[in-house]
Amino acid sequence: MDANAQSVHRDDVETAASRIAGRVRVTPVIELERGAFGLDMPLALKLELLQHTGSFKPRGAFNKVLAAGAPAAGLVAASGGNHGLAVAHVARELGIPAEVFVPTSSTPVKLARLRSYGVQVTVVGDYYADALAASEDRAASTGALVVHAYDQRETVAGQGTVGRELDHQLVGVDTVLVAVGGGGLVGGIAAWYAGHARVVSVEPERIPTLAAALVAGHPVDVDVSGVAADSLGARRIGTVGFATAQSAMVHAVLVSDEAILDARQRLWDYLRIAAEPGGATALAALTSGAYVPNPGERVAVIICGGNTDPSDLIAKVRHSAS
Amino acid sequence: MDANAQSVHRDDVETAASRIAGRVRVTPVIELERGAFGLDMPLALKLELLQHTGSFKPRGAFNKVLAAGAPAAGLVAASGGNHGLAVAHVARELGIPAEVFVPTSSTPVKLARLRSYGVQVTVVGDYYADALAASEDRAASTGALVVHAYDQRETVAGQGTVGRELDHQLVGVDTVLVAVGGGGLVGGIAAWYAGHARVVSVEPERIPTLAAALVAGHPVDVDVSGVAADSLGARRIGTVGFATAQSAMVHAVLVSDEAILDARQRLWDYLRIAAEPGGATALAALTSGAYVPNPGERVAVIICGGNTDPSDLIAKVRHSAS
Repeated sequence: MDANAQSVHRDDVETAASRIAGRVRVTPVIELERGAFGLDMPLALKLELLQHTGSFKPRGAFNKVLAAGAPAAGLVAASGGNHGLAVAHVARELGIPAEVFVPTSSTPVKLARLRSYGVQVTVVGDYYADALAASEDRAASTGALVVHAYDQRETVAGQGTVGRELDHQLVGVDTVLVAVGGGGLVGGIAAWYAGHARVVSVEPERIPTLAAALVAGHPVDVDVSGVAADSLGARRIGTVGFATAQSAMVHAVLVSDEAILDARQRLWDYLRIAAEPGGATALAALTSGAYVPNPGERVAVIICGGNTDPSDLIAKVRHSAS
Repeated sequence: MDANAQSVHRDDVETAASRIAGRVRVTPVIELERGAFGLDMPLALKLELLQHTGSFKPRGAFNKVLAAGAPAAGLVAASGGNHGLAVAHVARELGIPAEVFVPTSSTPVKLARLRSYGVQVTVVGDYYADALAASEDRAASTGALVVHAYDQRETVAGQGTVGRELDHQLVGVDTVLVAVGGGGLVGGIAAWYAGHARVVSVEPERIPTLAAALVAGHPVDVDVSGVAADSLGARRIGTVGFATAQSAMVHAVLVSDEAILDARQRLWDYLRIAAEPGGATALAALTSGAYVPNPGERVAVIICGGNTDPSDLIAKVRHSAS
């Protein structure tokens, strides 16, 4: 399949928005004053971490499942993280069964949280790839629907509704900063804003999935490590997200783990928002100087996830935080 | 002074809103689906904990100081908590000095945070009343402006801008739930919504400041204790807030400390919002059943503060939280 056939477009996002309306929360945007986060510029944040299950993932999962018709055989997915929670949530809301395959590296807390939704949790293999393969085998034998974490057109289109919603909430945005894992969110945002605003992808230096693919001209494997690996740790960018991001001329920047943790702390100090490291990664491009807007450039940042342990955020005192 | 002369009215709130525009953040409202927080009703939250300094307090402090003309002799205030942070923030933003008097019971973390704003922090006496008396003595000798934590008309009018803003953001609200400390916020909300929507005040059973005053027909002293005492622990309701709440026929309910902590945990489980106990108190009236709306009643809840240690929020798994 060529890249053009893979790309998601604005009308796909419109269709997704109609399909999932009422199923997902309209998450708020807050406009912040010059000086917030120590930045010499005003900016807007889209607080998508307030979405169901604490991340944007239900948007894509709902769109995939509703487009496919919510099969009685149920859903299968591979994820011990935000995508798994999203599929579990979607299954419960639609009243259909789901089985989530997770690798042995998943923590007991995440497994317990997944099981609290009433889904079948199957632990298999040491790596995400093992869990993914097992999920596909199950689907082949039962007829269940595979809900991929990022590399399906409906998933990317569903995540794009974050961009459409932001566009309706905040007129005149020049630039949108968004973190990248497997490329679902950045692809969706790029599909919506292509030709209308600049999209800047932000990745940890230790997981440069999209940046490496843009250099190579096609998806390539990268090493995965660092503080945001639990939510952004895809080894290879999805073909749909890549094709869409590439054709929309997404501008890719990288940030260090230290910058991510610093941005996460600033979100707490200046705004009392407790984001996960992946959720603070897009902001880190501004606070670290990896992306420097022009004077007057109107910037919006997607805060995409809040499934974090907030216990290390308190009791620090930052000069002039407010 | 009679109660009528003390009351704050809608036009006072309008004046305050014009005066402080651009000085405070417009905090977002999120509309939540039936089922959120385990409640069988939709509701809206005003996320005022995202305000500067983590609480609504800068609204009233800015209004008081700007109305008085920001004296070169500076500001004095008594508070080791949210009000002290607000006055420190206002002084820094306006470029004037401030001295904040705090009792010896204040924690080192709070003192350090106050000092980080560049204000003079003076520790005096064992109780809030000692700090307040010292602040008034200082003002008398220096000409500095006393910025009271709640019992001044401009303060109450400034806090009322939370209600005005909510009203513009969310049309058709029937009922607004708001926590009570010294009565500044509830008075301001009541001033705005009087005759337009029901205002329900929510207090800890262990600090029934407004409820006791409404029964007595005038402000009375109450004992102060419990999990929300750090932010809601006023011994006696302010005369301005009381007069305004009484004339607006605010409906007072009480909640237990257990209900407050449970509501605080639900804010995290369902929304990834880390509120302080006082900030979760208004929601506790719904989750505990202390206030039961009628079918179809459109309810908004003010989440008024986030100056909390979030370290005890994680790793609990609530069945069906999303």
